[in-house]
Amino acid sequence: MSTIGEAGEFALIERLVARLPQGPSVALGPGDDAAVIAAPDGRVVATSDLLVEGRHFRRDWSGPYDIGRKAAAQNLADVAAMGARPTALLLGLAAPPDTPLDWALRLADGLREECALVGASVAGGDVVRAPQITLAVTALGDLGGGPPLTRSGARPGDVVAVRGRLGYASAGLALLSEGRDGPAGLLDAHRRPRPPYEAGPQARELGATALIDVSDGLVQDLGHIADAAGVLIELDSAALPVPAELGPGGLHHVLTGGDDHAFAGTFPPDAPLPGSWTVIGRVAAGPAGVVVDGRPLQAGGWDHFRS
Amino acid sequence: MSTIGEAGEFALIERLVARLPQGPSVALGPGDDAAVIAAPDGRVVATSDLLVEGRHFRRDWSGPYDIGRKAAAQNLADVAAMGARPTALLLGLAAPPDTPLDWALRLADGLREECALVGASVAGGDVVRAPQITLAVTALGDLGGGPPLTRSGARPGDVVAVRGRLGYASAGLALLSEGRDGPAGLLDAHRRPRPPYEAGPQARELGATALIDVSDGLVQDLGHIADAAGVLIELDSAALPVPAELGPGGLHHVLTGGDDHAFAGTFPPDAPLPGSWTVIGRVAAGPAGVVVDGRPLQAGGWDHFRS
Repeated sequence: MSTIGEAGEFALIERLVARLPQGPSVALGPGDDAAVIAAPDGRVVATSDLLVEGRHFRRDWSGPYDIGRKAAAQNLADVAAMGARPTALLLGLAAPPDTPLDWALRLADGLREECALVGASVAGGDVVRAPQITLAVTALGDLGGGPPLTRSGARPGDVVAVRGRLGYASAGLALLSEGRDGPAGLLDAHRRPRPPYEAGPQARELGATALIDVSDGLVQDLGHIADAAGVLIELDSAALPVPAELGPGGLHHVLTGGDDHAFAGTFPPDAPLPGSWTVIGRVAAGPAGVVVDGRPLQAGGWDHFRS
Repeated sequence: MSTIGEAGEFALIERLVARLPQGPSVALGPGDDAAVIAAPDGRVVATSDLLVEGRHFRRDWSGPYDIGRKAAAQNLADVAAMGARPTALLLGLAAPPDTPLDWALRLADGLREECALVGASVAGGDVVRAPQITLAVTALGDLGGGPPLTRSGARPGDVVAVRGRLGYASAGLALLSEGRDGPAGLLDAHRRPRPPYEAGPQARELGATALIDVSDGLVQDLGHIADAAGVLIELDSAALPVPAELGPGGLHHVLTGGDDHAFAGTFPPDAPLPGSWTVIGRVAAGPAGVVVDGRPLQAGGWDHFRS
């Protein structure tokens, strides 16, 4: 039973579920028509992403554990970016029958351990046969009684601040794409993002008016806030953290690189931002857009169909 | 702008969202990091399925509208089979850039209209590029204060009853697979299941001890109840509805055919079952299994890796 095809659907599910303990938010876990997850707020935050082999991950660049961590992270970060606490994940796994069983089990390990960082569980899902590996991850979360932090709340006069790493995953991906070696920290950052999940609820406590997780690139994602709120976001390149280890294209990676899942938000000017947040600009009255040192940036981040 | 690649990710999303009105259960719809859905019960029912082109649907056999209806139906039926009311759907769409834009828009129409049958909305999702069309659908629902109808609740002495069509989708698929023509009703049943969604909450009101939606085949799915509850389920073939239009293999389709999404449940013997439910057998003490006229049925339904 070394491949998932040899195991068959039901044994595969049994093996996966055995590695996925259920936390206190799960009223009913895998094994029924649907899971039942606690939603004490009376609302549930829900988001879903697809990850396609060859496009969102490569098995020769990343092991299954890291792919699981990353797949979980990008969805959990979306929940946290609403100011919510993640509670559960659902995993859809489409894979060829010759996929090693151990690959699927290590994937589950990665999902489980990323979830454990925030107290969430992998509570359900689906496995199907397909010519190519595709992961569909849904994350749920609880707002704990507060308002969701949407993109449209940014107001002229707010400051723009960021928490978490920027540019690392992009610089690591560039190294891998060029077949070059480089700082292990960059390669690791591509393989396994480390979203500062606590930044979501923290931003709400700090009075954030808008919040987003940086998945497609800082300028592009702040552009979504600008569009939703109808405001102009002005960034100061000198205020951006551009570590030397990102290499000569560091500022470019910081402005346009995705997948680090830093959190970028807008805050009233008098918000008491702690040192974990870096002020990188301000919000002005429209027209909607993002400028860096007063100029628009051409060619932002990532369009899933055009790139 | 005739393909989704020409439209690009953001225009595609905009066009999709324009066709997806948001119902009263949606506190925050598409356009942010995550959706926010009402969960008045304080718990949320959640389920997710993957549908892969060539395996779960064929574009030469089914149009995008029907594929959307079917993708929504199988997930909404899972929610209803917990005794819950569906509230929202998330759609993950992976597709090649040369996919016609109109195909994607008609898919959304199908999802929307199936959701409308139960008062749910398509509240979010993701679109990505992939060599093959894959749909990832997540459905959420609300239990309305009642207990979830799980598989493990069946008790010896219960009756087994079914509501909805059995065997139609399977008979239709057989016609299509053999390249034969046949009753339009069978072909339609394969293309667009009609789950009797109200059967879920109704079963709970009728005191059902267990409920499942028949997606893989009656015997196989009742087997899940038998396994979860540790009971023997005894079916009477003479009690099964086997319409003449299913053809000579009718009983086989009824026992093993999936995808009609009828609801099969177990009820206390004195449950006041209305005429929409057909009693087809009874629950006995173990060993866990399903027998038809006293004999086990070989080769049940559908294993997603082995079939």
